[in-house]
Amino acid sequence: CPPPGVLSLCHCPPAWGRAARQPPSLPLAPCRAFSNNKVLVELDESSGVATMKFKSPPVNSLSLDFLTEFCISLEKLENNRACRGVIFTSAVPKIFSSGLDITEMCGKSPEHYAEFWRAVQEMWLRVYGSNMVTVAAVNGSSPAGGCLVALSCDYRIMVESPKFSIGLNEAQLGIVAPFWFKDTFVNVVGHRVAEHSLQLGSLHPAPEAHKLGLVDELVPEEKLQEKAAAVMARWLALPDHARQLTKSMMRKAVLDRLVAHREEDIQNFISFVSKESIQKSLRMYMEMLKKKKS
Amino acid sequence: CPPPGVLSLCHCPPAWGRAARQPPSLPLAPCRAFSNNKVLVELDESSGVATMKFKSPPVNSLSLDFLTEFCISLEKLENNRACRGVIFTSAVPKIFSSGLDITEMCGKSPEHYAEFWRAVQEMWLRVYGSNMVTVAAVNGSSPAGGCLVALSCDYRIMVESPKFSIGLNEAQLGIVAPFWFKDTFVNVVGHRVAEHSLQLGSLHPAPEAHKLGLVDELVPEEKLQEKAAAVMARWLALPDHARQLTKSMMRKAVLDRLVAHREEDIQNFISFVSKESIQKSLRMYMEMLKKKKS
Amino acid sequence: CPPPGVLSLCHCPPAWGRAARQPPSLPLAPCRAFSNNKVLVELDESSGVATMKFKSPPVNSLSLDFLTEFCISLEKLENNRACRGVIFTSAVPKIFSSGLDITEMCGKSPEHYAEFWRAVQEMWLRVYGSNMVTVAAVNGSSPAGGCLVALSCDYRIMVESPKFSIGLNEAQLGIVAPFWFKDTFVNVVGHRVAEHSLQLGSLHPAPEAHKLGLVDELVPEEKLQEKAAAVMARWLALPDHARQLTKSMMRKAVLDRLVAHREEDIQNFISFVSKESIQKSLRMYMEMLKKKKS
Repeated sequence: CPPPGVLSLCHCPPAWGRAARQPPSLPLAPCRAFSNNKVLVELDESSGVATMKFKSPPVNSLSLDFLTEFCISLEKLENNRACRGVIFTSAVPKIFSSGLDITEMCGKSPEHYAEFWRAVQEMWLRVYGSNMVTVAAVNGSSPAGGCLVALSCDYRIMVESPKFSIGLNEAQLGIVAPFWFKDTFVNVVGHRVAEHSLQLGSLHPAPEAHKLGLVDELVPEEKLQEKAAAVMARWLALPDHARQLTKSMMRKAVLDRLVAHREEDIQNFISFVSKESIQKSLRMYMEMLKKKKS
Repeated sequence: CPPPGVLSLCHCPPAWGRAARQPPSLPLAPCRAFSNNKVLVELDESSGVATMKFKSPPVNSLSLDFLTEFCISLEKLENNRACRGVIFTSAVPKIFSSGLDITEMCGKSPEHYAEFWRAVQEMWLRVYGSNMVTVAAVNGSSPAGGCLVALSCDYRIMVESPKFSIGLNEAQLGIVAPFWFKDTFVNVVGHRVAEHSLQLGSLHPAPEAHKLGLVDELVPEEKLQEKAAAVMARWLALPDHARQLTKSMMRKAVLDRLVAHREEDIQNFISFVSKESIQKSLRMYMEMLKKKKS
Repeated sequence: CPPPGVLSLCHCPPAWGRAARQPPSLPLAPCRAFSNNKVLVELDESSGVATMKFKSPPVNSLSLDFLTEFCISLEKLENNRACRGVIFTSAVPKIFSSGLDITEMCGKSPEHYAEFWRAVQEMWLRVYGSNMVTVAAVNGSSPAGGCLVALSCDYRIMVESPKFSIGLNEAQLGIVAPFWFKDTFVNVVGHRVAEHSLQLGSLHPAPEAHKLGLVDELVPEEKLQEKAAAVMARWLALPDHARQLTKSMMRKAVLDRLVAHREEDIQNFISFVSKESIQKSLRMYMEMLKKKKS
């Protein structure tokens, strides 16, 4: 069994996951916060709802560290009987998550690429396949991998501002979204919209995203957390077991497809990202981002 | 060849089915009614349209008796060359059908559960795979199995009243809709809507059901039969053969999936419904219904 | 390697395809036109956009000659590195294309039916699988095979006039649309709409087609070419390689299905079209068209 922090968590529940099933030692505390570097988790044991806040400034990019902490935190919640639902949101203003961290894909070893890609897969497998009710409270822009996190939830609420946009914009960077990004997207918006949006690498402003069905609901920013809690309460009114089996029935085919091709998908990523042409365009993109900042 | 009334009708057209292909012995009678206990069928031989009215008060629940009569009646029509289309509607005020009869699932033997579930499968296979044009004229609420009957038709018209609702609400009762309910639903409303609606066990008021595409058209109650006849006439304007092959092409994959897993699906149902926890919650639900009535 | 004009072009790029990759010998000419009998192609090498105009009066029907020229022209563009996108439109007023030429299906030999059907398949494989950006500028009615051409593009713009209609109306003629017509249609409009529309053989007036998602955008006739150019420019702003791989990912399953069953599909067509009942109804349909004209 690999040590905690290594990302084959799926098949090996760590000790604290099992420990979490014990009755809480401080039953009077209504909220228990356990902090990490990248992700802040608050569990309200009275409602059974956790909030997971991304706090990795400047843009909550999905680095290997972020993904590791994200998966460990999610696993803790998954194994905690007191937790039935989780709300994902951002603690960084104006951005939900900028998606995969490009620095993890630039000038690194094949082993590093493999480890990174396995962590990306793991994140998706855990969110898309979660037994908990998952709600994305999208309080900022959410391109690429950030959009994937939202797409993998049961329900998406977004701040109504047209300044915030969301989409799988990989094609804009000369990259192709993996097939499981695509499968998840098609399940949400249908084939035609997915085809257009993926080919154009579209980032849809919130009102457009709502029209396309990419997000389920728009709210003013100050109402977001309240709305997310209300949606969660509606979903938690259902008995867990029937809801979980129903969710699994709906998502199993798409989840199984990655599980069956996981190693192949990693090899594809390594050989793609190792290409000099891709390395060059990623370096140029990073340069551009740096200039933009300064 | 099993005797009539046993539900392997699909593979064994009964004698009266073949007899019905003979020229009618009373050519002057424009309408021929053959009555049953649970289902009333009227065939207008001039238009080739039958109306099948559910008349099993109080709520047209799909009992084994109801399903048996339903399948026999449908088979008669299917084998009757004078019949090209069938309209399903209710003779009971305010309810189309309340879905599967819970008394068939409570405190019975495994053999009974098997017989009942086979009848439910048979009903769906016959309606979803019918060569006739099938129109649901939904004149009342239509939860669970009642919704399935409507979903399996070619076209759904519903009374516009928001007091009437429709949906696959199994999850509300702690039950999971079978995969073929789900497949039928996804074919009608798409993946995202199906996922939300099934997980929440939603019963959609008619106007909402129309917005989601769950029903194709809303009309005032007094216009329902007229509208159903008009829709039917439009569909019957097409040559039968091409329409039937087209319908089969669209629905074959989903039909074949149940046919391939039929016995497995029956075993699943038996082992699920035999669980003490499920029996308990069904008994509680029945108690609640009884109290509601009195 | 078969001579040009024979329709196994897919697996055998002809000499002029490869030659076209050479630098153009007349670099000053901004537009190069190479004319055929049925199809007029203009390539603007500065933008990389070709326009393919159907000019086979009276109704641009998809005859064997038309399909052969269409495929050869498309292959030339596909192999020409100067060409990145193609706009399909009609040079015949009021009609985009009337679909398959019925005279090819009437009173001919099985060998002819096979050759014709292979050409229809080839056309679809080439358009649906094109590496170029494909835009349909639908400036007239577009039934059956004409609709298929439009459905196979990346984007559909149609003149907003309700006088022009589009749809797979095969069922109206007593014919069944092949499974790959259906697959293409379902990918564009979803399962429920496809099921209704195919069974009814519906021809949707432009505004209705837009509501159903069958066309992406409506414009006044005088704005059509300008709009098509603008849409094309937006799609060509993306790097080709990522866009092409994304498109292939979206369409591969449906393309592969025909490739795997191509000979079987040809045999189906031959045996279907050879039936006396079908021959009779096609002859009657042709008589009706002739009377309409005179």
